[in-house]
Amino acid sequence: MDRTTKHNKAMAKQKAAVDEGIAKADIDRGVSVLLTGDGKGKTSSAFGMVMRALGYGQRVGIVQFIKGEQASGEELFVREQLPTVTLYQMGTGFTWDTQDREGDISAAKRTWAQAKGMLNDDQYDLVVLDELTYMLAFDYLPEAEVIAAITGRPTSQSVILTGRGGGQALREAVDTVSEVKEIKHAYRAGIRARQGVDY
Amino acid sequence: MDRTTKHNKAMAKQKAAVDEGIAKADIDRGVSVLLTGDGKGKTSSAFGMVMRALGYGQRVGIVQFIKGEQASGEELFVREQLPTVTLYQMGTGFTWDTQDREGDISAAKRTWAQAKGMLNDDQYDLVVLDELTYMLAFDYLPEAEVIAAITGRPTSQSVILTGRGGGQALREAVDTVSEVKEIKHAYRAGIRARQGVDY
Repeated sequence: MDRTTKHNKAMAKQKAAVDEGIAKADIDRGVSVLLTGDGKGKTSSAFGMVMRALGYGQRVGIVQFIKGEQASGEELFVREQLPTVTLYQMGTGFTWDTQDREGDISAAKRTWAQAKGMLNDDQYDLVVLDELTYMLAFDYLPEAEVIAAITGRPTSQSVILTGRGGGQALREAVDTVSEVKEIKHAYRAGIRARQGVDY
Repeated sequence: MDRTTKHNKAMAKQKAAVDEGIAKADIDRGVSVLLTGDGKGKTSSAFGMVMRALGYGQRVGIVQFIKGEQASGEELFVREQLPTVTLYQMGTGFTWDTQDREGDISAAKRTWAQAKGMLNDDQYDLVVLDELTYMLAFDYLPEAEVIAAITGRPTSQSVILTGRGGGQALREAVDTVSEVKEIKHAYRAGIRARQGVDY
């Protein structure tokens, strides 16, 4: 069998497997996705899905639980060019910058109230809770309440959660979990974080 | 030591480590990033970086090497709302749909010519080559030429590559590699791909 015939046969087999998978997946509802792990690409992936949702004219809400002092590219873009998107930021900077546990906790609770409102509102097709996992890891928010709000959201709504860790209970509660592993990072070779890529 | 003091000390230590890392990373240039692995979030992450770059008014070029027949949300958004972004799509559908190796190879070459043009043009701050890795895995494009064009691009330009696999030579040639691992996927529980999240 020559290479072309072999390739075409392999592709036909793959197509059959893909088609079978598609036929089986017939539950139609919003999904919950956790993007975790230590590698680059979790927050950016969430914002890529924001773009996807907007392509279909969907209503999007974003809550960012940790953010640096500098405005990121995605923040600038959302604020200046996406007037239909609701963006709420905790706005206390990275926690290892503040070293103020009590202050962080009240900021986390204030921010969670915004997130809970979105998870309760079926006007939102897509809700992004960026860096939420750290709030659970630091015990700033009660895990059971967070998980209940996520699983109890409107059926039509999808939710994207990002951040390292996240815990077993959260992983079990969501539909999709991707772990982004750092294989290597420019940073370790002395290259500065790059505008438009890293922030 | 009470919990707050302990936490604040741990955060101070983490801040010191982060600050030291930032001080050491002093090379200022565009970066190359490979997003690979079998998990959800590679293409969406690339489009999130497109949003980041646009937040700073950067010039962006996107080449998509594989695409389904249906327009994706990100495609609709780029075409309708991002007139400054150059988007080129191979437009032959998934290869396991076509089963036409010869036709795929000429489409890949035509598409690569567009990508090469962008990698040669310092007007582009960010170039996304979506699903490029499959072109190498299927031997549709010569690996050495692709790697040479990526490493030889303008110093100020960043490039994002996506797709499963990608090979050792490509991993070594780029600055950052993230492997997105599927821990679980809604699809396997019978849930249909969701508009605004999966496409």
